[in-house]
Amino acid sequence: MKKFGFIGLGIMGNAMALNLLKAGFDVTVWNRNPDKCTELVNQGAHQGKSPKEVATHCDVTFTIVSDPAAAMAICNGPEGVAAGIGDGRCYIDMSTVDDATSQSIATTIIEAGGRFLEAPVSGTKKPAEDGTLIILAAGDKSVYDEALPAFEVMGKMSPYLGEVGQGAKMKLVLNMVMGGMLSIFSEGLSLGLKADLDGQQILDILDAGAMANPMFKVKGPMLLDENYTTSFPLKHMQKDMRLAVDLGDKLNLTLPTAAIANESFKQARKAGAGDEDIAAIYKIIK
Amino acid sequence: MKKFGFIGLGIMGNAMALNLLKAGFDVTVWNRNPDKCTELVNQGAHQGKSPKEVATHCDVTFTIVSDPAAAMAICNGPEGVAAGIGDGRCYIDMSTVDDATSQSIATTIIEAGGRFLEAPVSGTKKPAEDGTLIILAAGDKSVYDEALPAFEVMGKMSPYLGEVGQGAKMKLVLNMVMGGMLSIFSEGLSLGLKADLDGQQILDILDAGAMANPMFKVKGPMLLDENYTTSFPLKHMQKDMRLAVDLGDKLNLTLPTAAIANESFKQARKAGAGDEDIAAIYKIIK
Amino acid sequence: MKKFGFIGLGIMGNAMALNLLKAGFDVTVWNRNPDKCTELVNQGAHQGKSPKEVATHCDVTFTIVSDPAAAMAICNGPEGVAAGIGDGRCYIDMSTVDDATSQSIATTIIEAGGRFLEAPVSGTKKPAEDGTLIILAAGDKSVYDEALPAFEVMGKMSPYLGEVGQGAKMKLVLNMVMGGMLSIFSEGLSLGLKADLDGQQILDILDAGAMANPMFKVKGPMLLDENYTTSFPLKHMQKDMRLAVDLGDKLNLTLPTAAIANESFKQARKAGAGDEDIAAIYKIIK
Amino acid sequence: MKKFGFIGLGIMGNAMALNLLKAGFDVTVWNRNPDKCTELVNQGAHQGKSPKEVATHCDVTFTIVSDPAAAMAICNGPEGVAAGIGDGRCYIDMSTVDDATSQSIATTIIEAGGRFLEAPVSGTKKPAEDGTLIILAAGDKSVYDEALPAFEVMGKMSPYLGEVGQGAKMKLVLNMVMGGMLSIFSEGLSLGLKADLDGQQILDILDAGAMANPMFKVKGPMLLDENYTTSFPLKHMQKDMRLAVDLGDKLNLTLPTAAIANESFKQARKAGAGDEDIAAIYKIIK
Repeated sequence: MKKFGFIGLGIMGNAMALNLLKAGFDVTVWNRNPDKCTELVNQGAHQGKSPKEVATHCDVTFTIVSDPAAAMAICNGPEGVAAGIGDGRCYIDMSTVDDATSQSIATTIIEAGGRFLEAPVSGTKKPAEDGTLIILAAGDKSVYDEALPAFEVMGKMSPYLGEVGQGAKMKLVLNMVMGGMLSIFSEGLSLGLKADLDGQQILDILDAGAMANPMFKVKGPMLLDENYTTSFPLKHMQKDMRLAVDLGDKLNLTLPTAAIANESFKQARKAGAGDEDIAAIYKIIK
Repeated sequence: MKKFGFIGLGIMGNAMALNLLKAGFDVTVWNRNPDKCTELVNQGAHQGKSPKEVATHCDVTFTIVSDPAAAMAICNGPEGVAAGIGDGRCYIDMSTVDDATSQSIATTIIEAGGRFLEAPVSGTKKPAEDGTLIILAAGDKSVYDEALPAFEVMGKMSPYLGEVGQGAKMKLVLNMVMGGMLSIFSEGLSLGLKADLDGQQILDILDAGAMANPMFKVKGPMLLDENYTTSFPLKHMQKDMRLAVDLGDKLNLTLPTAAIANESFKQARKAGAGDEDIAAIYKIIK
Repeated sequence: MKKFGFIGLGIMGNAMALNLLKAGFDVTVWNRNPDKCTELVNQGAHQGKSPKEVATHCDVTFTIVSDPAAAMAICNGPEGVAAGIGDGRCYIDMSTVDDATSQSIATTIIEAGGRFLEAPVSGTKKPAEDGTLIILAAGDKSVYDEALPAFEVMGKMSPYLGEVGQGAKMKLVLNMVMGGMLSIFSEGLSLGLKADLDGQQILDILDAGAMANPMFKVKGPMLLDENYTTSFPLKHMQKDMRLAVDLGDKLNLTLPTAAIANESFKQARKAGAGDEDIAAIYKIIK
Repeated sequence: MKKFGFIGLGIMGNAMALNLLKAGFDVTVWNRNPDKCTELVNQGAHQGKSPKEVATHCDVTFTIVSDPAAAMAICNGPEGVAAGIGDGRCYIDMSTVDDATSQSIATTIIEAGGRFLEAPVSGTKKPAEDGTLIILAAGDKSVYDEALPAFEVMGKMSPYLGEVGQGAKMKLVLNMVMGGMLSIFSEGLSLGLKADLDGQQILDILDAGAMANPMFKVKGPMLLDENYTTSFPLKHMQKDMRLAVDLGDKLNLTLPTAAIANESFKQARKAGAGDEDIAAIYKIIK
């Protein structure tokens, strides 16, 4: 049986590794704070001593950590993944990182004799637990093929998108659309309320029609309550909007709606809402 | 049993009246071109001689015609609804008209001794046939209460929104959100394609996530095929975007995303796409 | 010698009528509050008893009042200009009014047997005193020709722009450009200050280059001091921006920069700066 | 007498060096193609053998070349300026380069024992010939003080703006304001023409009022003639607009008017006008 490694046991990683175990896979885990390994070891996981050891021991090693710096730290150094990845073993970084970081990790792994796939995910805690993430895979197709049984356990969808970098680009497209939708949704709700329409009725009618979508269903009541409990921090959305507009610039494409929604997110960030939920864009519109 | 009148047997009206008949209501129909009455009469409808006669004969008369001028023509004149509406009988105009037209009809009907409700609908041919329209009712609440059994047959949802004018405002809010969503969707799809992502994969991934909605599902393949067969003419959407932005102006509300999406629709209209489907906004972005 | 009438002796009208007197013209004045006539009568003006009497007595009657309602009041009624304007005498309304008001006054004057010219001015108190206004004349060309000697005393420029309504449109174009320039100027100054450049240096450098203009010279120090003493109320500018964008809509023209500058003015108005100077747009950008 | 070096004798550099000579300074010139030195040598200049030799021989060496790569080539390598700059001699790069290039050259020069000032200029051929450039100096203040007599000959204004990088930032601010002004100017002219106003009258009236500026005076007739003969390539303006918007992003500042004017420039670039004059933004608006 194929041996899977799993590095990074935060909210996302813990749920994802648990799903692999429950599906009967052989899983070796590692986390910077080893306490987080306990629950998974109790469920049958092996515990690695370092990213290097996990990468040496396993056929395919998955990592999901919180930012580019952490992703680089897992890959590099004497105890890093690259130090153990030789002989064509597979490394899959599922963290959301920028293009340059992903390229850098890819190069390091390949130079060390390994094979690489980037696979950032769309979805948060609940889909991670339910195994319904959307996994945006890009890089070495042979790695994708070997990892597919694991992807099918962790996600409901794991399209292969092409060479390294395409996963990150797809995520930018998704987040840009999300940001624009949230901006026009906030404007529409504000307009309705100012026009003496009932907020709940607006949400109900939207939810019954051609524009009904899970995001409006979740964010709508948050807007009405002005509850901005963070699920996706506004400053991260704004950063992605900016990166998407800049990508459009490079590709000679005009994106006026995205550019102006970005300005609204920037204004919300300027008004102090950077660490609140993306829903806080509503603050500067209402 | 309550007697219902139904005036205007176009694609929408014919389907809606048929649903009333199938539900066992007593229905009297009228259409400018009387040939269109035949099918409904064969299904058990009575045929009126004029809008006036329908309004005299029925407890509640519904009308759905294509524009403000037609709606005014049905209401006014010696053979119009107002001439027959006395004794507190009910008139419900389901046409999509501007605020001034709706107010004018309301005043005429009330001065003639009738009671008035505006009830524009959201939804096109299929929901009309399936009885799953969204009916946006506003005006005299007692008319709403009397019409509710009929609304429940014609629509899946018929919220009462307040005084005359609120139905039209709710429609502006809905269309403004739709226009903004379509604009950011077009930009997102264009960005992805220029970045060498696969169009169908973009649509599939959007459809699997938090932004999944029936409109993207219908319009997405149209954008990929550059098929702009008209379901909702772009020039009408642009007009509604402008009216929504102007309403925001009156209410002291900034709507930057809507304002700029409006400019994109205007540019598409300027490029000759006014009579094509709203999806043709994609032309000037891709 | 031609007899000129002058109605409306506010800050602008008083200075303009005084220039006519100083140039040696025969001038008859009228003002709602007659006290304001005293100074001009001391300088040699005749005093009329009513707008009607002025219009009857003079070959050409000028009016400049503060808004459409006042302009209509001067024209209409038993003591209004129209009541005295017969026999092809000339009426020139120099107030800034909307298109509909101007058309209505034009119709009234012509039906009363007079001839009409609209001539809104660009410029405030100082140019009025210095005789350096820009006079935007439109309507009956024969009136323009008769009034030209007076225009040359009151203004430095008085182009004839075509039929009634073209003067108002030219003013919209000017104000739209002014609003856009002020918006980008505010953004540029804010960007420089945030980037630790010196505000006065930014103004000095702008003033030395290809973009140097009197407006930046006046408004620049106001922005640096955050002094928004009203010279042109922001809410009026915002109204003109909206009218300009709506005119673009009617003419099938996209105006994205104007549309978004309008949103910034709206946001400033929403933030309570409607009665402050147009410079207060800076508040919501800095 | 202080010895000045001048490297780069294109249209700008030739005119600037000539002005130094005419003012009686001791000037040593160098150009990659030595033929361009002839005229200046005939006017009394010395001819250097390499950038290194010029930098060794002169107290202050000026360079103005066309892009970052050329600026780096002049500075680096065995025959570059840095190889000859020791003993605290001064180097002033007047090329328009990005921040990173300027920082890199500064570091190289300082490590080589020299002193550095960046001094990009605002103005083109005519101001270079007339000695009326605007010189945006930033970096080592002692270099600025030594160079001031030369700056006063080459420019009409040479403010000292602070540390290295501030010159480039001031240029971004200026270009952002210029881009925004050109965008609203194009929109205003288009609106006027569509409203049947006369183009030349619009220009004349703008030129008589508070918005009168040299840029409108130059670009206005170009727009009316749709003559886009390149003076400042549109693609460079668009790049600067993007950099300015990105700088705003870094500094937590919303710049909606600049962001949307950038989209208009992008659209013009996409439509093939990248190498035409910035005035070609008018193409996609009219």
